[in-house]
Amino acid sequence: MAEKLDPWKSTEVKDYKRIMTDFGIDDMGKLVEQLPIKNNYFSRGTIFGHKDFKVILDAIKNKKPFALLTGLMPSGKFHLGHKIIADLMVYFQKLGADCYICVADIESYLTRGISLEEGRKIAIEEYLLNYIALGLNPKKTKFYFQSEGSKDYTNLSRFVAGKTTFNELKSVYGDLTPQKIVSSFVQFADILHPQLKENGGPKPVVVPVGVDQLPHINLCRDVAFRMKENKFVMPSAVFTKLAPGLKGVETKMSSSNPETAIFLTDDEKTVENKIKRYAFSGGQMSLEEHRKKGGNPDVDVSFQYLKIFFEHDDKKLEKIYNDYKSGKLLTSELKQMLIDKINKFLKEHKLNREKAKKLVNKFIKN
Amino acid sequence: MAEKLDPWKSTEVKDYKRIMTDFGIDDMGKLVEQLPIKNNYFSRGTIFGHKDFKVILDAIKNKKPFALLTGLMPSGKFHLGHKIIADLMVYFQKLGADCYICVADIESYLTRGISLEEGRKIAIEEYLLNYIALGLNPKKTKFYFQSEGSKDYTNLSRFVAGKTTFNELKSVYGDLTPQKIVSSFVQFADILHPQLKENGGPKPVVVPVGVDQLPHINLCRDVAFRMKENKFVMPSAVFTKLAPGLKGVETKMSSSNPETAIFLTDDEKTVENKIKRYAFSGGQMSLEEHRKKGGNPDVDVSFQYLKIFFEHDDKKLEKIYNDYKSGKLLTSELKQMLIDKINKFLKEHKLNREKAKKLVNKFIKN
Repeated sequence: MAEKLDPWKSTEVKDYKRIMTDFGIDDMGKLVEQLPIKNNYFSRGTIFGHKDFKVILDAIKNKKPFALLTGLMPSGKFHLGHKIIADLMVYFQKLGADCYICVADIESYLTRGISLEEGRKIAIEEYLLNYIALGLNPKKTKFYFQSEGSKDYTNLSRFVAGKTTFNELKSVYGDLTPQKIVSSFVQFADILHPQLKENGGPKPVVVPVGVDQLPHINLCRDVAFRMKENKFVMPSAVFTKLAPGLKGVETKMSSSNPETAIFLTDDEKTVENKIKRYAFSGGQMSLEEHRKKGGNPDVDVSFQYLKIFFEHDDKKLEKIYNDYKSGKLLTSELKQMLIDKINKFLKEHKLNREKAKKLVNKFIKN
Repeated sequence: MAEKLDPWKSTEVKDYKRIMTDFGIDDMGKLVEQLPIKNNYFSRGTIFGHKDFKVILDAIKNKKPFALLTGLMPSGKFHLGHKIIADLMVYFQKLGADCYICVADIESYLTRGISLEEGRKIAIEEYLLNYIALGLNPKKTKFYFQSEGSKDYTNLSRFVAGKTTFNELKSVYGDLTPQKIVSSFVQFADILHPQLKENGGPKPVVVPVGVDQLPHINLCRDVAFRMKENKFVMPSAVFTKLAPGLKGVETKMSSSNPETAIFLTDDEKTVENKIKRYAFSGGQMSLEEHRKKGGNPDVDVSFQYLKIFFEHDDKKLEKIYNDYKSGKLLTSELKQMLIDKINKFLKEHKLNREKAKKLVNKFIKN
């Protein structure tokens, strides 16, 4: 029954464990308990590993300045998966972090041909507005565009070139293109610039990323180490799992495929339809069979969304887990629970987004 | 005697001719006669070839806007060789050009480790001051630092990456390094940015360069062609010979070796010593032999300096050429002529540089 009692461990974790061993990511382990405010992304394994997170914990404990840096590629619509980063920013701001949000408009121009104007519009209307509605603190946020950085930030994106070798870039990016090289140097500057003099000097910086970003983070840490004159603290990272797509825990939520994603602008009926039609179920084929064998919450997308996003109470989540596994809770009931939770959240979020529109200028100016 | 009567052709020209054939540089030829003001750098072959110079001539004839772009690497001291570019800028300004002078401080940081502060100091005190003293027009000059460019200029240096391929960069630079790639993209932005909207939009731009820069110019022309939305005119180039070093027409004038160079800050005695001791002579070993066989002005550095820099009168230069070749003019007399000319020029230049100090701010602000 041990497995039953530990709803935070899903089948996929096994794969992540392998990745962590293969790539040298450290397990969050006991560090989670050192966080002064409980956070479900940490305690339920959405954040499953880290690189040098202890320097961030030290900064939090000692009330020293530290920063969180995240980037957004201005394309597509804001969905539940994006909410993880937004919530993390709000959480770390409460723990003292300054948040740097980089609109990767240079990168999206170079790699996707999106003009700076179009990128700006998407970044503000899709991302910033939702971030604000989710609780971002304007006083502790720097929302900026790669194309509009300060002189020192821009120059940093050139100077890092002198601290890398060609073979290192090849090992990170495989097939090198001029675009990739320039994009990566701009990204290094993004990660390191919270430590520039104009931003208060050297400090720990945490970057929440997917595991695919590990080689990039490692090279950026090396670059930071080599830029002796800047006295940069090597950046830290926390590794987050992607939110699963509606069609299964091993699929991806993607804005380009609406059947896989819950958008934060979806209306009640759309949410209901999407969950009922597409949300992959861990339940049995018939009612009788379900009652007898029980469902599998580990592969059930509705349960996973409750676990990741919507059921904040550990005891309640555990009960849902056990009831579903025992067959007491039906798939239709589980789906309805999720639909209700999402629609309650989205109703409130819609109001918050209206309020957020008035706050946008506070963020753009900062 | 035909060779005697044509003092502008020196032995080295033969090598340049070969280079031009090999690399597809066009001979200036009859185009020189179309310049509305005579210029000895053109008529005496210091500028020996071009790429697409006709669009510049058309702009001059039709009084349309055009620009000259040159870059300076802030290192070392200003010598006679640097004077060629300064004089060309003054000349093209008279013909209507706006001059863009780029201080390649990013490049000198990346490739030589010179800090931006040090680079700035050298650029202003060594280069700008001498440029102004040589007659640069502040109203038609934009003196700028790579590290302090506008947003559109900076972004251009990233966007060009999307218009090159890796193999092209390899063919231009051979051994690629991240530094070289970043430097080349910044250079492309330098050459193209006079055509940005903020600088008045598309227009012909001429870049005076050494022949070694040809592959770089060619790639930059391709990039300009590929950036359709910008409607860039493909940049033109004129190819200049390097000023020979004191020790021979096939040696280089270099700031790092004072015995090879006349600096524009040298005093009278230093100039006299340098010319007497180091200037390679085309004369014979003894007075008798010289009177009998005559000297060789084509390899005589003193004669070459008169031809390139100091004897502006064609008839007088021709007489010196013939007198030296016939043995009538002795090496010591030729050297004294040059010493007198240089020191007269430097005396005046010293005063002009004092005046220039008051004008520096006009250029830095522009």
